[in-house]
Amino acid sequence: MINNKPSVAVIGLGSMGWGAAASLVRAGYETRGVDIREEILQKFSAAGGIACKTPADAARDADIVFVFVVNDAQTETALFGENGVLETAAPETVIVACATTPPAFAEELGKRLADKGMLPIDAPVSGGAAKALTGEMTIMGSGSNEAFEKAKPALEAIATKIYRLGEDPGIGSRVKMINQLLAGVHIAATAEALTLGIAQGLDPKMLYDVICASAGASWMFENRGPHIVEGNYTPYSAVDIFVKDLGIVSGAGAAANFPLPLTETALDQFKQASAAGLGREDDAAVAKLYAQRGNVKLPE
Amino acid sequence: MINNKPSVAVIGLGSMGWGAAASLVRAGYETRGVDIREEILQKFSAAGGIACKTPADAARDADIVFVFVVNDAQTETALFGENGVLETAAPETVIVACATTPPAFAEELGKRLADKGMLPIDAPVSGGAAKALTGEMTIMGSGSNEAFEKAKPALEAIATKIYRLGEDPGIGSRVKMINQLLAGVHIAATAEALTLGIAQGLDPKMLYDVICASAGASWMFENRGPHIVEGNYTPYSAVDIFVKDLGIVSGAGAAANFPLPLTETALDQFKQASAAGLGREDDAAVAKLYAQRGNVKLPE
Repeated sequence: MINNKPSVAVIGLGSMGWGAAASLVRAGYETRGVDIREEILQKFSAAGGIACKTPADAARDADIVFVFVVNDAQTETALFGENGVLETAAPETVIVACATTPPAFAEELGKRLADKGMLPIDAPVSGGAAKALTGEMTIMGSGSNEAFEKAKPALEAIATKIYRLGEDPGIGSRVKMINQLLAGVHIAATAEALTLGIAQGLDPKMLYDVICASAGASWMFENRGPHIVEGNYTPYSAVDIFVKDLGIVSGAGAAANFPLPLTETALDQFKQASAAGLGREDDAAVAKLYAQRGNVKLPE
Repeated sequence: MINNKPSVAVIGLGSMGWGAAASLVRAGYETRGVDIREEILQKFSAAGGIACKTPADAARDADIVFVFVVNDAQTETALFGENGVLETAAPETVIVACATTPPAFAEELGKRLADKGMLPIDAPVSGGAAKALTGEMTIMGSGSNEAFEKAKPALEAIATKIYRLGEDPGIGSRVKMINQLLAGVHIAATAEALTLGIAQGLDPKMLYDVICASAGASWMFENRGPHIVEGNYTPYSAVDIFVKDLGIVSGAGAAANFPLPLTETALDQFKQASAAGLGREDDAAVAKLYAQRGNVKLPE
């Protein structure tokens, strides 16, 4: 504790984790950060954080640990691996698992953490890097009231929308999964629509403006459309993220014997884009795949 | 002319045409209406309109003719068929073609009408029946300045957003087609997402509320989601409309050798729903198809 605030740790200082850690530092929390990239750790020290080499080091004095790694395997390693959080975390540490992972993993993780005496929150986040930086993420959370009450001020430092969706870990990840189903389909649909429009001779900026004010609009069309219209594929969120996230949806559908034709079709576009070498470009670069197949020239 | 206002005619008093005609009557226009359903004509007379048996009758004294039929074939018949508009319309009558039709048809139609001395506007509309009733449609229009200037006050009586997208007929229909691509994919995605969420044990109303505030949101998710969450399939817009509209998109893709995997997948869902007897239900009833395939019970 410092200034009556709990000490926090953030494992993984990627775009979302960095934003969370920076928001916590700004809000006056003693914040430990862990990343495998030395230059990021130096930057974090310069920004007022405490750089740590391992999750175990960061968790030793933390009341709340945010796990902002990329997927289930990294979450597993950060928590239960060598030099992982569980080696040092005190009982009743709140463990906030923020990666998008298969709901079945999140559910099982919650049970395992509770068995170890931790207070787990299944807490996938949404909103993108820009919102993360300003402390305005959305958290789709589920966990015990005790965990939420203990973490509340810290959660409020990183997020403006905090959904408490139930007490059982897994609910948050299920809601996030459904969100990603829609987000992924909408990004691919944005690419399909804008490239067809260009193929039809329409001005992409005009088309974008009209659709944004019409029934074809989506959050993703409004957000990713300008990337295509302006030919800017700086990776705010990469193609490979949706290979992963729609893969999670597809896996959950397969496990439940629930056909998901649009999910499978959108996933196939991201996989093809990744196979074409676009995996680390912005997810809107799936438009390049459409443009190539349709022999259309995209804005540059 | 009456009160310095041009006389107008509306061919087709379905949900959108009725809304347009009612808005024109309300705005003080002498409005002739045509429909094949006698009871609709009686209702239109009672509402202050002039009921006409044929397009030719309605167009005889009209300065502006709105064609609000369902598709290209009906547009063709209403204009060029027996007792069609072209039999009686005076030169320089503005012909506002509002049905969603293949862009190639709309382009050709514009040329044919111009050859006959008419002032055509390619003017697909959007916004739904409720907005139509209150005079708040969106018009995605293209046509000559002369046509737009002559029709302007009447267009403003039925629409709050009037896009003038260019001088050539076909542009309006191309933009509308792209809008329908997105709208159709988003409706099917809404059904896929909400039914998977139910299969995963999530509360559909909670899921709907969270997604509406997240990156997975779309205009269609927000608008059609409640139909599924509340189990209300009153047909504001029917499944078969999207069999038609996505069929137009698919046809344009095929003609341009432009692959449209999401469009084809969504179209397939609407076709399957229609084949299962749901064609005249609300387009959100595509969720029933998903529920059946996934063995899920929808809200009722």
